[in-house]
Amino acid sequence: MPIPSPSSTPTPDPRSDRGAERGSERPADRKRQILHQAALLFSREGYQATSMRALAEAVGIEAASLYSHYPSKEAMLQAIAWQCADDFFTTVEPIARSPLNVRARLKAMIIAHVEVLLRNQAASAVFTDEWRHLSPQLRSEYAELRDRYERYFRELIHQGIVENLFRNAEPKYAALILLAALNGTARWYRPDGPMTATETGELMAALLLEGLIRTV
Amino acid sequence: MPIPSPSSTPTPDPRSDRGAERGSERPADRKRQILHQAALLFSREGYQATSMRALAEAVGIEAASLYSHYPSKEAMLQAIAWQCADDFFTTVEPIARSPLNVRARLKAMIIAHVEVLLRNQAASAVFTDEWRHLSPQLRSEYAELRDRYERYFRELIHQGIVENLFRNAEPKYAALILLAALNGTARWYRPDGPMTATETGELMAALLLEGLIRTV
Repeated sequence: MPIPSPSSTPTPDPRSDRGAERGSERPADRKRQILHQAALLFSREGYQATSMRALAEAVGIEAASLYSHYPSKEAMLQAIAWQCADDFFTTVEPIARSPLNVRARLKAMIIAHVEVLLRNQAASAVFTDEWRHLSPQLRSEYAELRDRYERYFRELIHQGIVENLFRNAEPKYAALILLAALNGTARWYRPDGPMTATETGELMAALLLEGLIRTV
Repeated sequence: MPIPSPSSTPTPDPRSDRGAERGSERPADRKRQILHQAALLFSREGYQATSMRALAEAVGIEAASLYSHYPSKEAMLQAIAWQCADDFFTTVEPIARSPLNVRARLKAMIIAHVEVLLRNQAASAVFTDEWRHLSPQLRSEYAELRDRYERYFRELIHQGIVENLFRNAEPKYAALILLAALNGTARWYRPDGPMTATETGELMAALLLEGLIRTV
């Protein structure tokens, strides 16, 4: 936790937690805090609609100081998206490579994906919706990352079809449909609602793997 | 089709179809054409990133002329979203009220929803993603419309659970998961790909109702 310095003059603001986070702290903490506020604003207002000024105000620092941490708004968008991608890879890749059977593996991947998604919901919403505003070069790097990630799902679905476990759907489309359903949670999930992130993941795994219709 | 007047001086532009649509035509055609270009730009660049100037250029008219059709950019966003909502209601409501059994009715609603979604893909992407940029008053009217539409799905899922046909999932979440999966097609579907809109709807109905796992 950042420790407010004696020179800081926090202005409590019920709209945000910025007051508690003001002060002099380690640059890594400050950067994390900037990305956290950026993710909140980008997901709520949209990347284009968020000004550096509004962002600086939300963090409780001067705009000039913001630029000393991130050279541009796009650098923040990229940092949020790449960090999110990193979380997905770090968590889901080991499951995709695990010796679990196809069905158990896909179930575990779905649950892990939803858990990562809901661990930092605002960043996830930015990751899934706001990447379109990256410049062409970064956008194509993003598309590559995303494609590499989706491949874990495509390949596993393909394997399930080959083993005659899964319905014969084009793995590419089945993976896109599945991921769209999962990613939607970044928009509708309420942390104060009745389901934990893991329960949400389990419900989605049941619905997507076994379907809404009861078979037993 | 609008008939170009002799005074029009179309500038062919490979990036858009505006050249063919220039000229003097009926105001209703012009308004349709403006909304069509607005939907394309809003869905591709984002609502916030689209300027009235860029929009006027895409339509091939002066910005001042654009304002004579729509008083503001928001008026266009609203027109696109409300027209899309109207399409969903007009098509899906009669199915929701039809005497089909629960399973057949939900299947038909899913297919119809995807057909409407893909009939005007850009407008659908605006409808599902860009509504966040409406002003608070319109945003709450939008939320009401959307909630009223989702209710058809929630109520039918509830009925299926009561009849012990469907898995016992909270209808609210099941409907949100289902609609997120369906709405995702507005972003990934390619009209020149291997599946028609109806086939895409059928695949989604099979995946969501019966699941990815084969049971027979």
